[in-house]
Amino acid sequence: MGQGTLLFRASLGDVLRAERMRQSMTLRELSSSARVSLGYISEIERGQKEASSELLSALCEALDVPLSSVLREVSDYVEAEELALEIIEAPIVPSGVVASAA
Amino acid sequence: MGQGTLLFRASLGDVLRAERMRQSMTLRELSSSARVSLGYISEIERGQKEASSELLSALCEALDVPLSSVLREVSDYVEAEELALEIIEAPIVPSGVVASAA
Repeated sequence: MGQGTLLFRASLGDVLRAERMRQSMTLRELSSSARVSLGYISEIERGQKEASSELLSALCEALDVPLSSVLREVSDYVEAEELALEIIEAPIVPSGVVASAA
Repeated sequence: MGQGTLLFRASLGDVLRAERMRQSMTLRELSSSARVSLGYISEIERGQKEASSELLSALCEALDVPLSSVLREVSDYVEAEELALEIIEAPIVPSGVVASAA
């Protein structure tokens, strides 16, 4: 895998944090409601730890958002990043140079 | 979490297996291309093991599908299951009974 590899947990963390902040919920409140340690949720939000499927479901339940919505948002995030990577990684062709068959 | 908790890894496994079979790729071929052990991929496809984000990216690369597409499909799967659960878990209201304000 190249340096540009997109990681699910990074986008998942962004989406979960954005949802929590949209609801003006503190890490402490989410931790208490989801019964998951505050430090663990914080690491997940920063994309540093993988969330197990059970934990992800518990966080969605505590945030009162369907798992499908969270996954759709993550998919949108990842898609935007894939497009950005394509632009960055596209070979730069000098203008005026035309490929010729050898 | 109730018995009806939807797990990300279960839907992810279904989507990954469906994609591999659509391409008529064997577990052995995918294992060799993604450099992941055959047994591990098989457990992921059956929803028995969590795939790390790195592994998920490696599988997507080996299947030549964008991560965003896989996540979108998983989201669709999960959404269909959420709707099915809502129907199953909805309280049964006897016909003819009308709620009255006390």
